[in-house]
Parts: sequence; C-alpha cells; structure tokens
Amino acid sequence: MPLIALPSALSPALSPSTLVSAIEIAATVAFALSGLLAGARKKLDAVGLIVVAGLAAFGGGTLRDVLLDRRPFFWVEHANWLWALVLLCLGAMLFLRKRHLAVTERAMQWPDALGLGLFTATGTQLALAMGQPAIVAVLMGVITAVCGGVLRDIVCNDIPSAFHDHRPYAVCAFLGGWAVVGAQALGWPEGAVLLVGAGLASGLRLLALATDFRLPSWE
Amino acid sequence: MPLIALPSALSPALSPSTLVSAIEIAATVAFALSGLLAGARKKLDAVGLIVVAGLAAFGGGTLRDVLLDRRPFFWVEHANWLWALVLLCLGAMLFLRKRHLAVTERAMQWPDALGLGLFTATGTQLALAMGQPAIVAVLMGVITAVCGGVLRDIVCNDIPSAFHDHRPYAVCAFLGGWAVVGAQALGWPEGAVLLVGAGLASGLRLLALATDFRLPSWE
Amino acid sequence: MPLIALPSALSPALSPSTLVSAIEIAATVAFALSGLLAGARKKLDAVGLIVVAGLAAFGGGTLRDVLLDRRPFFWVEHANWLWALVLLCLGAMLFLRKRHLAVTERAMQWPDALGLGLFTATGTQLALAMGQPAIVAVLMGVITAVCGGVLRDIVCNDIPSAFHDHRPYAVCAFLGGWAVVGAQALGWPEGAVLLVGAGLASGLRLLALATDFRLPSWE
Repeated sequence: MPLIALPSALSPALSPSTLVSAIEIAATVAFALSGLLAGARKKLDAVGLIVVAGLAAFGGGTLRDVLLDRRPFFWVEHANWLWALVLLCLGAMLFLRKRHLAVTERAMQWPDALGLGLFTATGTQLALAMGQPAIVAVLMGVITAVCGGVLRDIVCNDIPSAFHDHRPYAVCAFLGGWAVVGAQALGWPEGAVLLVGAGLASGLRLLALATDFRLPSWE
Repeated sequence: MPLIALPSALSPALSPSTLVSAIEIAATVAFALSGLLAGARKKLDAVGLIVVAGLAAFGGGTLRDVLLDRRPFFWVEHANWLWALVLLCLGAMLFLRKRHLAVTERAMQWPDALGLGLFTATGTQLALAMGQPAIVAVLMGVITAVCGGVLRDIVCNDIPSAFHDHRPYAVCAFLGGWAVVGAQALGWPEGAVLLVGAGLASGLRLLALATDFRLPSWE
Repeated sequence: MPLIALPSALSPALSPSTLVSAIEIAATVAFALSGLLAGARKKLDAVGLIVVAGLAAFGGGTLRDVLLDRRPFFWVEHANWLWALVLLCLGAMLFLRKRHLAVTERAMQWPDALGLGLFTATGTQLALAMGQPAIVAVLMGVITAVCGGVLRDIVCNDIPSAFHDHRPYAVCAFLGGWAVVGAQALGWPEGAVLLVGAGLASGLRLLALATDFRLPSWE
C-alpha cells in the first residue's frame, strides 16, 4: 500500500499511524483540488492547472524547507507523490467536468481545515526539532500550512485569499503552532503534541467557518 | 572571445562546443528580450526592464539551483553575464525603439524554442548528475526552461503565459526531459543525450507553433 | 535596552554605533509601515497587513540570504524582531486609523531613503565579506534594499513600484553599492565604507525626490 505508507514522510519525526496518514492524504488532495479550482476559475490550461495544484499542495512545505535550508524536499524523497499529483489532476479534470464547482468547494472545507491543522503541527514540530526559537517554529508551521495557498493565488494573479478574505486561517495556524510549542515544553509525547496542535488549529478554523467569524479590517 | 567562452558555464558537465555555446547565447538573449518586451508592454521604467529581462534570462536556472541547494549560481561564477545583460537591455532599448514589437516577437520564436530545449536538457542532466530521481530531474529541467518566463510574468502582474496560453511549452520541456533520462539510462554519450533531449523539446515546440496546436482547456 | 541593541544584528560585521542602530530601527519601521499602507489600500485583513509589513521590512534581507545560502536569517537570530513587528502593526492599526494616509506616506520618505542607503551598504558589505564578485555584491545590496518592497507589491497584486514609477530607487542603491565596493578597495575603515555607501544612496534618493527626477521610459 504505497500510497498509505508514503505520507508519513511528511513528518519523519512522527510515529506514523494510519489515521495521520489518511488525514495527510486527504489534506494534500484537498489542497491540490483548491489549486485546481482556482486555476480553472482563471481558465488556465492543463499545464497551469497541474502547476497550481502542485503549488497549493507542496508549496508551503517546500518554502519552509528552503527557509530552513533543509533537504531533500519530501517530494524529492518520495517522488511518487509527483506522479500521484499528475494523476489526481487528470482524474479531477475528467471527473469534475460535470460537477458544479460550488459544491466541491464546500466539500473541501473539512479536509482543508484538517490539513491546515496537520501541516501546522508537523511544520512547527519539525522546526522545533531543528532547534529553531519558538516564534520561528510557529512561523514555520504557519508557512507550511498557509503558503501553498499563497503561492497558488500569486500565480493565479490574485491577492492571496489568506490575507484578504477576513476569515481566520493563518491565525488558526498561529494558535495551533503555539499549542505545539506549549505541549512540547510540557514534555508531552509526540503523538499528543501533534494532536493538540492540529486539533486546535483545525477546530478553530471549523468554528470560524461555522460561526461566520470575520477578522477586523482597517479603513 | 570571452562572450563565446562564457556560456559553457551554463552546463559545466557538457563538453562545450561552439554550436552549443552559440545556441546558449542566442537562447539567453531571446529570453532576456522576451522580458524586455513584456516589461515594455507594462510601461516599466528602465530599471524594471532590466530586472524583468534578467529574471526571464536567469530566473529559471537560479530557481532550480535554489531548489537543488546548488552554488554558485552561474551568474555569480561568471558575473560578466550581468554586465552583458545590462548592455543588452540598454542596446535593445535604443535599437528597438523604432521597430514594431510584433515583428520582434515573431523573430524570437526560434531562439526561444531552441533555448527551451537547451535549458531543459542541461537542467535535467545537471539534476541527474546530482543523483536526483528521474521525475525530479525532469521537473528541474522544466523549471530551468520555464520558470524564468513565469517569474517575468509574475513581476509584470500577469498570469504566467506558460500556464495560460494553451500552447504547449512546459509539456515540450517535460517530454524532452524524459528523453534525456532515457538516453542517459541507455548509456549514450553526453553530447548525444543533450542533442536528443534538446532536439525533442525544441522540435515539439516548433511543431506546435507551426500547427497551431492547443492544449485542452477545462470549463 | 534590547530594542536599541538588537538592530546591530542586521550587520554583524559593523562596529555597531547608536546612530546606525537608530537609523536601522527607523528604516525597518519605515519599510514595515510602507507594507502596512500598501496592504490597507488593498483592504487586506489584519493577518495580511502583518504579513505584507513583514515582507517589506525583512523580505529583502531574507531573499539576499537565501541567494547567498546564508543562515540564520537575522529574524531567526534575533527573533524578538518578529514580536516587535506584530506589535508595531497592531499599534499602527490603532493609531493610524484616524490619520490621513497621504500625510504618513510623505513622512516616510526620509526614513525610507535612509533605509535604502543603509540596507544597500550593509548588504553589499556582507556579500563582499563572503567573497562575492563586486557586481554580485552590489546586486545583493540592491536586493537587500529593494526586494522587500518588491515582494510587498507582488503579494498586493501590483506591479512593483520600484520597477514602474520611474523614480530612481534601485539606481540609487546600485550607485551606493559601487561606492561601498570602491571605498573597500581603497582600504577605508568599515565605518567610512558604510557611511559613503549609505550616504550616496540615500542622498541620491532624496535629491531625486526633491528635484522630481524621472527615469527614462521606453515606448
């Protein structure tokens, strides 16, 4: 079951569990689909759709690794993910052609929120394990979770929605990252650290969506 | 003849030949001119024109080297290229002022297609020589060839034309990169590997332009 | 006095002086405010404002360090700057709400010009100290001074004003960088090198603003 086993590469420090792996796959797919839909809205061609899907799915972790000077990237270490991405995109293009985009976007809120939490927690843990200061580790968690979407929007020539739509997104990641820092400082086991950080970030995101909470704006 | 000798630095692993050097110069100039024209269309000032020309010419290889954690960049190793770029831009601004842009763009299709092939092949070879997996090496070849133009378009606040104009560009690079991988796996000599990879990518690009082939779009 | 002492980290090679530190703080604040105002014009939410302010303040030095493969970034080495940034943004959002933006922009021209000079000089010195060729060191100085604003404008979905507004900005940094190279070649002491480079870049910028000088454009 290579596709189930691979995602643990996202966070080599974790004791991989099937649940985490399943969430990681669902989250990566959700991020890739968000890129696909954003690209389709901009009428990109097939190449552009795959690139934007790949940026949304892998861009955050890659930017984090560039900033941390960390190699290999996980899509280099587990290059089959690149094939999976291409297949996903081609499959989605064929399958989604007949569906309404709005339905799909709604359906993606859950895996996207789970991915936000999971990527935040694993990114923060990874930076802490490299000895980064707490605030930097949290920032790396936020970058892991958020910057894939930012790169997606920049390539699509939009202002990044994470900075513009007044919905809490990076803020949820920020708070989840601090939960990771706190739990780690308390000496909790790795699985619990992951759970509390990812749970807080994902939970806040889902709560914000459920209550239609808006960030303050500034005239 | 420093300008003839320098370009072999683009691909230190190659046995440099005058023909390859001449193509590399022509391709780099074509890429730089594409940046100049894109910047002129956006009414950039002289600084912006030089920056965008430089991004188009050197951005793809630089991004590849950042991702591969490879230093020095070739424009650091052979810093005279930076002067050549500035002189090219100033010369082009003076010379092209009286010409019609459309003519120039058409004239650039050939050197641009040759550059696409050559940069794909050298980028892929370079990544293979660093021990990257095949799919990653091909991706690095595509990035070398395509991402200069992508950065050019992002700075010019356009959706990258490589993702948007439905003309095969990255796809040609992708197939040329696999030709490099295949030829290398067959144990062909370096020159032949370069020739088949670059020839396939450039040939497909010119064929696509000649037949007005379009990539499938997606509603 | 942690906030006074920290900025010397921007240029560890300099003998830190209170004046340089004060200029560095003022310049970093001016750059951050430029991001804040650009983000406010685009109606970003609070998260977006902080990100864009951070990019404007720290993006140029970070990009330079990525290109030079230099770690840690100064905002990792002195992570308190990240907190200062967040506090500055929150304070500015509360304080500036009642002020007119145009006034503030005008008021920022002086610290921005001083920052342009100082970041150019320290960036160029730093690259020279790493053994880069002169033209590359100057380019690194320009990137340090200019690319924060470029990243700010890209995220705000604008063509970077440094490439578009026909005001000399990168050109001032370029000439200031060469002054650093020249003074260093003459064996001047570090403080004098910094002074002449920063002074030339800042002075030219202020002169250009005072005389309303425009860069040539190109039809």
